[in-house]
Amino acid sequence: MARVMIRDCSVLLVPDAGECGVAERQDILIENGVITGVVPTGTTTEALGGADPTGGTARTGAEGATGAAGVAGHVEAGAWEVIDATGLLAVPGLTNAHTHSPMVMMRGAAEDVSIDDWFNRRIWPMEVNLTPERVQVGARLACAEMLLGGTTTFVDHYFHADRIAAAALECGIRADIAPTFFSSTGDAGREAAFDAARAVRESDRAGRGHGHPRVTASLGPHATYTVTEDDLARTVRVAGDEGFRIHLHAAETEEQTRASVERLGATPVEVLERTGVLGEDVLVAHGCGITEADLPLLARHSASTAVACCPKVYLKLAMGPTTPVKALWEAGVAVGVGTDGAAVHNTLDVWESLRLLALTQKQREGDAEWMTLSQTLRLATRGGAAAAGLAGVTGAIEPGLRADVVLVDLSGPHHQPVHDPMAALVYSTRASDVITVLVDGEVVVRDRCPTKVDLAETVAHARALARELVDLSAGGAVQRYDP
Amino acid sequence: MARVMIRDCSVLLVPDAGECGVAERQDILIENGVITGVVPTGTTTEALGGADPTGGTARTGAEGATGAAGVAGHVEAGAWEVIDATGLLAVPGLTNAHTHSPMVMMRGAAEDVSIDDWFNRRIWPMEVNLTPERVQVGARLACAEMLLGGTTTFVDHYFHADRIAAAALECGIRADIAPTFFSSTGDAGREAAFDAARAVRESDRAGRGHGHPRVTASLGPHATYTVTEDDLARTVRVAGDEGFRIHLHAAETEEQTRASVERLGATPVEVLERTGVLGEDVLVAHGCGITEADLPLLARHSASTAVACCPKVYLKLAMGPTTPVKALWEAGVAVGVGTDGAAVHNTLDVWESLRLLALTQKQREGDAEWMTLSQTLRLATRGGAAAAGLAGVTGAIEPGLRADVVLVDLSGPHHQPVHDPMAALVYSTRASDVITVLVDGEVVVRDRCPTKVDLAETVAHARALARELVDLSAGGAVQRYDP
Repeated sequence: MARVMIRDCSVLLVPDAGECGVAERQDILIENGVITGVVPTGTTTEALGGADPTGGTARTGAEGATGAAGVAGHVEAGAWEVIDATGLLAVPGLTNAHTHSPMVMMRGAAEDVSIDDWFNRRIWPMEVNLTPERVQVGARLACAEMLLGGTTTFVDHYFHADRIAAAALECGIRADIAPTFFSSTGDAGREAAFDAARAVRESDRAGRGHGHPRVTASLGPHATYTVTEDDLARTVRVAGDEGFRIHLHAAETEEQTRASVERLGATPVEVLERTGVLGEDVLVAHGCGITEADLPLLARHSASTAVACCPKVYLKLAMGPTTPVKALWEAGVAVGVGTDGAAVHNTLDVWESLRLLALTQKQREGDAEWMTLSQTLRLATRGGAAAAGLAGVTGAIEPGLRADVVLVDLSGPHHQPVHDPMAALVYSTRASDVITVLVDGEVVVRDRCPTKVDLAETVAHARALARELVDLSAGGAVQRYDP
Repeated sequence: MARVMIRDCSVLLVPDAGECGVAERQDILIENGVITGVVPTGTTTEALGGADPTGGTARTGAEGATGAAGVAGHVEAGAWEVIDATGLLAVPGLTNAHTHSPMVMMRGAAEDVSIDDWFNRRIWPMEVNLTPERVQVGARLACAEMLLGGTTTFVDHYFHADRIAAAALECGIRADIAPTFFSSTGDAGREAAFDAARAVRESDRAGRGHGHPRVTASLGPHATYTVTEDDLARTVRVAGDEGFRIHLHAAETEEQTRASVERLGATPVEVLERTGVLGEDVLVAHGCGITEADLPLLARHSASTAVACCPKVYLKLAMGPTTPVKALWEAGVAVGVGTDGAAVHNTLDVWESLRLLALTQKQREGDAEWMTLSQTLRLATRGGAAAAGLAGVTGAIEPGLRADVVLVDLSGPHHQPVHDPMAALVYSTRASDVITVLVDGEVVVRDRCPTKVDLAETVAHARALARELVDLSAGGAVQRYDP
């Protein structure tokens, strides 16, 4: 049995409702990937039924050390890995609730363009160049960037999804991956995407025997404006028959909503309702164009519906108002925060996204007292877990949940003095403040280095393949944006 | 004569107008704090008239080394310090165009509150606790944070300004400092603030003999809503007689503008005009409430007027629309970007501010093609220099300007692959990517450490004094917010 103790940290407590808080001087006990205890430092021995996992000796350094412990009581004999986290703040791993991870390969290649040009003159023409290798190399870089920044789960929607799954498993990050399809690729394209979802689901063989797989799959129709209602209905059938969730783009802007009403006689949310997508477990990316009239529909399906908000993208592409988080919460819908792809967001930094979410929600509501520190931190952790289909699996540091834990250093001059650690997390933490990251109790970042992939090699490989990926000389495009 | 060569870097070129660019493999030559050449690597010897400042030997590491060189031609004999910048991007030092640096002491102590409560229930009551020591300790921490993040100039507006000047000189950063006053403190308060400006101006004795002082002073009436028109007129007289610039808050929100019209029968800009403030060299903080009708007034005085935009603050306090940068530029007014104080901005990270400026300007104009990479980078460098009264002194890497240079590392996974280094600077650079910083050709940050102050001691000192500063038990307030 694998046992890890994170010793002497502060812990961010994220309850289901109400104020978050910070408990100081805690030990986090982890057994077989699951958090089994969060106890005051010095009482660990008691919690373990009399055994001291440190062997009575203090460990120093962030390196961790294997404690030799013959442990009695409810804990069976076995070695403990002890991570000294003195002075660090343990935070639930963040979830990137909507991204296209391999698009890091296009970072900075589509700047200062309208949303139409972004799709039609840059990204969709570039995606003609996608190959399985380029996707896997990009996804590996993306996983490294996300883990280094304290993101322990990402929710992806892209092509060659099996390669994204492979990259996630290599890096040790948690992921839900939806293979993208457009109706323009016909029955064959749609069925191939469904098959890809099945393959992704099968890919984490080890994980399935270990409590919960680290990689899961969703079905990935691209959007209500690129997938027909027939294909959405077919997606619903497969989801129902085989127990998949659905992840798609809908109501990305108010303009898309207007166009949908004009073309289809229904808002994107109404399309989701009449095709049965609402009713399945569904993650809607963006939803900035959700209308007042859509809210009762969403409320009716709130237990199975989540929305991902990616605020940097709405600003950068001048898309208009951001996701109506307040109204969605009032309708009972879970909300997570995402980066979207780095071809528009430039980073996969969820700290940046959650900060922008808080700032732009205050702006949207005209209320500086709204989207508080506690609301923001809950959205980025528990909300993200819900968006990933992982409510009750991860999203907080408490017994019974998987041990996805991030150790953050608030000692830097940009944080000090710390009057409020939650304010530091929301408004001044940088990805570079993350020291150590665990997923499923496994140390995947130690001393700011990924432990399972070679970072320099990962970067070099991506650089070597990136130029060909953004080369537009071949012509063509994978799709046309005309919502 | 002090001579420094930054060897083999890429250089961000920021022309007065048009597209910025990046020149690869350049050497930057610096003599007595002034940039004397930017030449392709390998041609330095020629530029120096035949002498090789590296002594013909490659230097490695970011440490720098003193080259032994008997230099001929237009360069006289003397030792060169060589900084190996292979693989790094040299960027003009950023300017924080509006801040209250000692407010780092209140970081995180006023969260999720309205602008009224922020002033009246948090900040102005806390400022009763200001002492010269607390201000200097806070300013020192602020200077360290700014330098570490690549900000080489800051424009301050606060109390105990002499102590801020002292901290700036200790740390080696460039600063313009305006001693704040309210009319509520009477003639004595106003005259004391003018005297403080005179003292700040005198404080950089060494700098005045060295081409340009590193610390300058402005006059600092707080705002059009806290300073009477008589006091503004008196400020104008002192400015004119003694050659000071004026730095004040005005038209911070549309609501303030409405209130000004109601109370004074004039917009804040009209008040500035009729009191003669427009006409002097003036920096206006915020200006979000500038009206269409104000623009011709500003245009008439555009050569002597600048505006500082601090976008994170407008979002966080739900202040409404941001500064109308496009209209100001069309009126010929210079614009810089600032953080404002860390009691609302939480960091003094100008990368964060310039990114938010680009994003929120795109949003404000509804135009993703506006506030381009080049426009944003020019605003944060040349625009900041203009806001600080330093146009022609700093703000770009070109011969004749002071050598305020920042070396940025774009090798991190959050930047790679780099299709466009300007996109990396605007949309993915973190303060922690800054490796080396020079002000006036002096290395003030080396390998991510301030060279002139002890960082750990600076942080510890601030922590020790911070709790008493935010203690509200004494009661009272320095001013009341009621614009």
